[in-house]
Amino acid sequence: MNNPETVRPVITYDTSPEKYKHWSLACDGEIATLALNINEDAGIRPGYKLKLNSYDLGVDMELHDALQRVRFEHPEVRTVVVTSGKERIFCSGANIFMLGLSTHAWKVNFCKFTNETRNGIEDSSRYSGLKFLAACNGTTAGGGYELALACDEILLVDDRSSAVSLPEVPLLGVLPGTGGLTRVTDKRRVRRDHADIFCTLTEGIRAQRAKEWRLIDDFATPQAFAEKVKQRATELAAQSDRPADAKGVALPAVKRTIDAAGYHYETVDVVIDRAARRATLTVSAPKSAVADDIDGIVAAGASWWPLLMARELDAAILMLRTNDLEVGTWVLKTSGDAAHALAADAVLNANRGHWFVRETIGMLRRTLARLDVTSRTLIALVERDSCFAGTLAELLFAADRGYMLSLPDAPAEEGKVTLSTMNFGDYPMVNGQYRLAARFYGEEAPLAAAKAAIGQPQGADTALALGLVTAAPDDLDWDEEIRIVLEERASLSPDALTGMEANLRFGPGETMETRVFGRLSAWQNWIFIRPNAVGEGGALKVFGSGNKAKFNWERV
Amino acid sequence: MNNPETVRPVITYDTSPEKYKHWSLACDGEIATLALNINEDAGIRPGYKLKLNSYDLGVDMELHDALQRVRFEHPEVRTVVVTSGKERIFCSGANIFMLGLSTHAWKVNFCKFTNETRNGIEDSSRYSGLKFLAACNGTTAGGGYELALACDEILLVDDRSSAVSLPEVPLLGVLPGTGGLTRVTDKRRVRRDHADIFCTLTEGIRAQRAKEWRLIDDFATPQAFAEKVKQRATELAAQSDRPADAKGVALPAVKRTIDAAGYHYETVDVVIDRAARRATLTVSAPKSAVADDIDGIVAAGASWWPLLMARELDAAILMLRTNDLEVGTWVLKTSGDAAHALAADAVLNANRGHWFVRETIGMLRRTLARLDVTSRTLIALVERDSCFAGTLAELLFAADRGYMLSLPDAPAEEGKVTLSTMNFGDYPMVNGQYRLAARFYGEEAPLAAAKAAIGQPQGADTALALGLVTAAPDDLDWDEEIRIVLEERASLSPDALTGMEANLRFGPGETMETRVFGRLSAWQNWIFIRPNAVGEGGALKVFGSGNKAKFNWERV
Repeated sequence: MNNPETVRPVITYDTSPEKYKHWSLACDGEIATLALNINEDAGIRPGYKLKLNSYDLGVDMELHDALQRVRFEHPEVRTVVVTSGKERIFCSGANIFMLGLSTHAWKVNFCKFTNETRNGIEDSSRYSGLKFLAACNGTTAGGGYELALACDEILLVDDRSSAVSLPEVPLLGVLPGTGGLTRVTDKRRVRRDHADIFCTLTEGIRAQRAKEWRLIDDFATPQAFAEKVKQRATELAAQSDRPADAKGVALPAVKRTIDAAGYHYETVDVVIDRAARRATLTVSAPKSAVADDIDGIVAAGASWWPLLMARELDAAILMLRTNDLEVGTWVLKTSGDAAHALAADAVLNANRGHWFVRETIGMLRRTLARLDVTSRTLIALVERDSCFAGTLAELLFAADRGYMLSLPDAPAEEGKVTLSTMNFGDYPMVNGQYRLAARFYGEEAPLAAAKAAIGQPQGADTALALGLVTAAPDDLDWDEEIRIVLEERASLSPDALTGMEANLRFGPGETMETRVFGRLSAWQNWIFIRPNAVGEGGALKVFGSGNKAKFNWERV
Repeated sequence: MNNPETVRPVITYDTSPEKYKHWSLACDGEIATLALNINEDAGIRPGYKLKLNSYDLGVDMELHDALQRVRFEHPEVRTVVVTSGKERIFCSGANIFMLGLSTHAWKVNFCKFTNETRNGIEDSSRYSGLKFLAACNGTTAGGGYELALACDEILLVDDRSSAVSLPEVPLLGVLPGTGGLTRVTDKRRVRRDHADIFCTLTEGIRAQRAKEWRLIDDFATPQAFAEKVKQRATELAAQSDRPADAKGVALPAVKRTIDAAGYHYETVDVVIDRAARRATLTVSAPKSAVADDIDGIVAAGASWWPLLMARELDAAILMLRTNDLEVGTWVLKTSGDAAHALAADAVLNANRGHWFVRETIGMLRRTLARLDVTSRTLIALVERDSCFAGTLAELLFAADRGYMLSLPDAPAEEGKVTLSTMNFGDYPMVNGQYRLAARFYGEEAPLAAAKAAIGQPQGADTALALGLVTAAPDDLDWDEEIRIVLEERASLSPDALTGMEANLRFGPGETMETRVFGRLSAWQNWIFIRPNAVGEGGALKVFGSGNKAKFNWERV
């Protein structure tokens, strides 16, 4: 009974194409087709049927996995056509009955992951030349339209019945909360009064007007649709610089042990102290020098440390978020040889032009960005055997606070923080700024001082002076001070901490992504817990019952 | 019994210096001192005492009024020193017992007004050269510090006990939700880890470290404090271009009748249909040509149409927001002679260099911005006798939708929309963009077309083509179409509409102000309704009882 997997239902996010129940991935040269054909009886939890190509977390896990396959296993793919395997329906969005049965925390976690996966689509378009075409071959509603919105272009079939719609407000009394409202304005630039009509119209808007209002890019009759999709996919592919003749890198399942203590991977170890409601994540530097020439790098593939670490950290974050809701504080630690970590950064930097290295940097970027939007307190501890060097130092800068043990007489290799060029732009947060730039509000002096320190191990005094750490207690005070910090944090209201961290982590500049995670998600979270949505007569509760929702009409 | 004031407690926002219970305003040449000395027994509602210079809505109403007095009645004032009339305490923020007794809607409305008043301080600093110095002569906690944050500079007394603090998270399980979290980062640029410590520290941070962390600008011992305040206030005054020798314009109480039908002012009429949960606001153009030379303008003073209309519209918005929660839709109408409205705009434009005209434009700007952040559906109707001309057309662009009656054969003066130069930059929303620019996402073509139409009355066809209105039904369809629009809107979830409108109204660009209203307020609203704050054992509920809050530890 040591294995929590046997005592509680642990959600793992494990999947691979041969296990997909809902998506199919077909690669044909530069064009991949990702088709949604949902098995309505294969919800990730019991109690609802996934009718009308509606999705739940399990469906999105497959989408996330499929995107990873395209990125790494199919470097020749330049355009991904996202479409449906069903007739007359593209996707009707998140399953309402699932939402009605779900706890508040489940809904919020599910929406966050969905948002991240969609942001990942745009991330790959922006950074890796992987283009996405939504081929909406039927009804495209709610989250289905939100998925289409994440693609570079949207084509809708003009069959006199198919429409795009965001019916959440009129039908369910909640928001199109996984990016819909934000992308309609920020990305599609739909005029606000048109957006207002669109978002209150249950039946949605069909091809001609949808194009006029910028809700879609183009449309075609059912007869001409496949040809138009192919033509546009080919045109999008021409914008891509993904390599035509490269061999992909296979992504085997991430190896992991789960036991009572936590989750254990090769480069990431998670130890959970349930009584303290705290997890300690320790990320290890490479044990030896990483492969540094392209042949060696590609041969190492998924076991190449930068990719291995990114995938394992990503998996650990998702596991903790989904399964360990009460574990409110994550202590971020590192270990290993800074020389190896910095050498890995040098290899990333030198080979960034290669598709596989570019994808690996992308995976690191998205994983670190996932950390930033995680609603857990992040405390980094720099100790004697830590390795906060280069990319690993991003964990320190992602943390709400960083404490560094002051070791004035320690040898050079012990307990230092060392910056690399990778800390200066390669890993932007969702606000589009890299962590050090956001930390210093883009101010020149501290950024120049940090840049001048690249490659030089910083002890506690200089790390403090450079503003890289929050405080630097000495050996005598360390245990007591850290204990107090962690205990005090654990005593605070989890909700207040979530709100506070969401406000303090990103600073002034907002992007579409931060607006999705901050403004839109915060409003949706509020609505998700109001009686008008989830109370006895709330719209989400009565959906499908034939009863009308009963609202408290007060405007708040 | 026709007067609702006699049948229900209507909150009016009426006050004037001789009625102040909590603030005193003393003007001495270029420096005004606004001192907070709260009468703890004079809460606006029963059930709590305003101890420790803590405030409620009534206190903020006086602050709002006092700021108006300084703007209009004291043009010679260049720096406002905001301080406390009590010993050893500046202000301890919003009264917790008041918050504990308040409904969710009351809390949210109170916070919104508080936010607007503080934004108004910054608005006057930015646009009117009126500078603000927070002279924190004692404990500066929570909303007290948030008030200080709204000032241009913060001085703290260094008496070895006074501190600035945002203790909401550790003490109350809610956020510093009236701008605190946002201004600490966006305005003060406090490093995020320092901000994290600061916002979780009940006791706050005293002078020396507060300055190091940028939480304050400077400090002084009790002996040196008054002198330092005076010196810095004088230095700030030197940055101002407010006139030394101008005579102020008195602000008499806004005249108003309240009856069963609604609220009636000289230029603004509000008719409430309670069954339909709808208010119709009709704003009238000047009845005759407005005074157009400076002497005449100043002589007209508060009865000069642009200022009269702004003050009455502001008052009407506040009345409706506070007293009529279920009235979820505001129909915005105008009436009168477009020639007079456009002439008023020309006078505003030509005389904008004069302090009184500048303040009047500022009042219009803040009033229209208040409309944008109002959580009510705004529907503008352009009808036969409408006067959506120039400044009044901003009501059309502030609306979620604008419907215009198509009158192809009407004479030139009937039912048109006419733009003036004032529609192109004088009235930015809280996102810093003027409404037409935000409407068209800053795109050149539609903005150039709109500019080319300045001064030319647009009928429904051309207004539609210019993108100024949403739809233009003809005479035959008008009544039915508008009826359906309003009825459908009124059937939707009030919460979903609030969230949707907050997301669609402002578009991509965010500012500190939009982040306060969107990101911060949305998170606070969420937290304000969670059991961890307001449930039986919630932190806000048990405060002061000696009991510890009981939290559900799940992180969401």
